[in-house]
Amino acid sequence: MTNFTTRADYDQAISNLPVADQTAIDAATDRQGQLTKPPGSLGRLEDLAIWMAGWQGVEKPQINAASCLIFAGNHGIAALGVSAFPSDVTAQMVGNFAAGGAAINQLTKSAGASLDVIALDLENPTADFTQGPAMTEDETLDAMAKGAAAIPDQADMLLVGEMGIGNTTAAAAVSMASLGGDASTWVGRGTGVDDQGLKLKADVINRGIAANQDLIASGFGILSALAGREMAAIAGAVMAARHRRIPVLLDGFISTASALPLLKDNPQALDHCLISHRSQEPGHHQIIEKTGMMPLLDLGMRLGEGSGAATALSIVKSALAAHNGMATFAEAGVSGAS
Amino acid sequence: MTNFTTRADYDQAISNLPVADQTAIDAATDRQGQLTKPPGSLGRLEDLAIWMAGWQGVEKPQINAASCLIFAGNHGIAALGVSAFPSDVTAQMVGNFAAGGAAINQLTKSAGASLDVIALDLENPTADFTQGPAMTEDETLDAMAKGAAAIPDQADMLLVGEMGIGNTTAAAAVSMASLGGDASTWVGRGTGVDDQGLKLKADVINRGIAANQDLIASGFGILSALAGREMAAIAGAVMAARHRRIPVLLDGFISTASALPLLKDNPQALDHCLISHRSQEPGHHQIIEKTGMMPLLDLGMRLGEGSGAATALSIVKSALAAHNGMATFAEAGVSGAS
Repeated sequence: MTNFTTRADYDQAISNLPVADQTAIDAATDRQGQLTKPPGSLGRLEDLAIWMAGWQGVEKPQINAASCLIFAGNHGIAALGVSAFPSDVTAQMVGNFAAGGAAINQLTKSAGASLDVIALDLENPTADFTQGPAMTEDETLDAMAKGAAAIPDQADMLLVGEMGIGNTTAAAAVSMASLGGDASTWVGRGTGVDDQGLKLKADVINRGIAANQDLIASGFGILSALAGREMAAIAGAVMAARHRRIPVLLDGFISTASALPLLKDNPQALDHCLISHRSQEPGHHQIIEKTGMMPLLDLGMRLGEGSGAATALSIVKSALAAHNGMATFAEAGVSGAS
Repeated sequence: MTNFTTRADYDQAISNLPVADQTAIDAATDRQGQLTKPPGSLGRLEDLAIWMAGWQGVEKPQINAASCLIFAGNHGIAALGVSAFPSDVTAQMVGNFAAGGAAINQLTKSAGASLDVIALDLENPTADFTQGPAMTEDETLDAMAKGAAAIPDQADMLLVGEMGIGNTTAAAAVSMASLGGDASTWVGRGTGVDDQGLKLKADVINRGIAANQDLIASGFGILSALAGREMAAIAGAVMAARHRRIPVLLDGFISTASALPLLKDNPQALDHCLISHRSQEPGHHQIIEKTGMMPLLDLGMRLGEGSGAATALSIVKSALAAHNGMATFAEAGVSGAS
C-alpha cells in the first residue's frame, strides 16, 4: 500500500485512506466526561486525547515509541541565491545531527522521542525548478518510498522534520501550487534573507510555477515539480503513517508544506496530522488560515529540523497522561456540579 | 525575610526584592548566539533559557527539582451561591489529589515535577467579604507564611496552583481591586455558572470592594480584604521564591490573580514569574492585557490546580535542553550565514 514503486501505487494509496475509529472516539469522549474535572476544563488537552484515541483505535491511547524523522535534501534553486547559507550547510547539519549537537537532538531527548536522520542524495541536488520539474516521477516515488520506509516498526507517534538549504523557497512554491494565492504572500525571510532576497524568492517561485504548469494540477505533480527530496519523503512518511494509523505531528512551514499536496489529491489526507506550532514564516500563517489546521504552540520558532514537533510532543503526552490516569467522579467520590 | 510574622516583615520583604543576575543573562545571551541555529530561530525558547539564567544566576540554568504546590481554601462568599459546586468539593478534591486521581497528579508526573497539597483550614472558610475583610491581618500573614514554608528546600522551579470552591469570584475581586476596571468585565463562568450566576458574581464583587474601601489601597490589604487563604498562600510562596531566586510558573486566572497584589506593592514583584497559559476565563485575558505578561500556552484550559503550569513546564525544560546541550558553530564545524 505504501511502497510507491509506481505512480499507480501512489494513486491507490491516496484514494484509500483509513479513517478514524468512531467507536474509540466515542469511548474516549465518554471517559473525558466522567473524569474529576468540570467538562471541557482541560480544553485542547481533551481534544488531543480523543483525536489520538480515534487514530490509535483505542479508548486509552499511548505514546511509548514517538519517532522523529529528519529528512535532508539539497535543492537546485539554492544555486540561484535564495538562502543566506551555502548548500554545504545541509551536509554539515546532518553531521551535527549525527553528533548530537543540534537543537532537535536535545528537544527529542527532552520530550522522549527517538531520532533518525535520513540524508537523501545530498551530493545530487534536485533540478532547478525554474527550468522544469525538480524531480522525475521516479525520483519523486523513490523519495516518498524512503520516507515511508523510515518509520520504525514500533512507532506509535510520528514527528516529521527537515533540513535543506533553500527549502523555504521550495515550500513556498509547493504551498502556492497547492493552495493558490500570490507569490509575494508566500515568501518569508527563511533563516536570514533581506528585502532583496524576498523579491528574488518570489520571482523564483513564479518562474517555477510557470515552468511546471502541466504538473501542478495534481498533488503528486506538485511534489515532482517543486519539492525537494526531503519534502517528498515527508509526504511519503505522512501517507505511510496514515495507512498504519500512526498520528503525526507536522513541524513548521516546510514540514507542513510538504504534506499539502496530499490534501490536493484527497481532502481527508491530513486528518491524522496536527500542526505542532505556528512558525514565524508568513507562508505558514497562510497555510494555517487556508486549511483551518490549528497549531498547538505559538512560540515564535522558525528553525525547522522538527524542533516545533518535538516541543509539542510533551503537550500530547500531558494530554494522554490526564486522559488515561485521572480518576472518574465515581471512583474518587467527588460531587458533580449542582 | 519571608517569615511574614508581622506586617512589617511583609513590608520589608516586598520592598527589598533581589533582581535578575545581569552577568548570567549576558553569558546566556552570548551562548544563544553561538549555538548551531540561525539567531533567534528558537523564538521564545531562547527567551526562556535567558530568563531562567537570570534568576538562577548561572549561564546554564537547570531544572532538577520542579515543585508544584496546590493550596486549597474555602471562601465565605461560596455561601452566596457564586459557584455551581458545593464547598464540600474543595475537601473532596484534596482527597482526590492525595489519592493521585486528579489532573494535576498526572500532569506533574508527565512533566517531572513533585506535587505537594496544602489544605488551609478548610473547615473554617474566610469571612463573607461583602460584609468586611475576608481575613484579618494575622490570618493573611499566617496563610502567606504557610505558602512560603511549603517550597521544598531543593526546589529550583516553582509551580503554584489552587483549589477552592468560589475562588474565581475572589480572584475577580482581587484583580479588579489590583488593576481597576468594571466588575462585569472581570467575571466569567468559572467551572460552570449561567448568565444569572454571572450577574450574581459581579454584584458580590462590587459589594466586596465597597465594603473594603480602606484596605484595597495596598496589595497586602487587597489580599486580606478579598482573597482566600489559598490565594494569600500563593502570594507568600511567590514572594519567598523571589527571595530564594527560584523562577515561578503561575497557572491560570486564580493563580495569577493571587500574585497581582504584590505587583501593586512593588511593580517589579513578578519579574521572576511567567504566566503558563491563557485561561478561558475572561478575567485572565484582562490581566494578561493589563500586565503585558505573555502566556506560554493557549490551549483553552480553565481547570486550575496548577494544570496549565504543569503542562507548560515541559516547554521550559525543552528550552533549557536546547540551551545547555546544543553545540556551538565552532564545536560542530558548521558554516554561518553568508
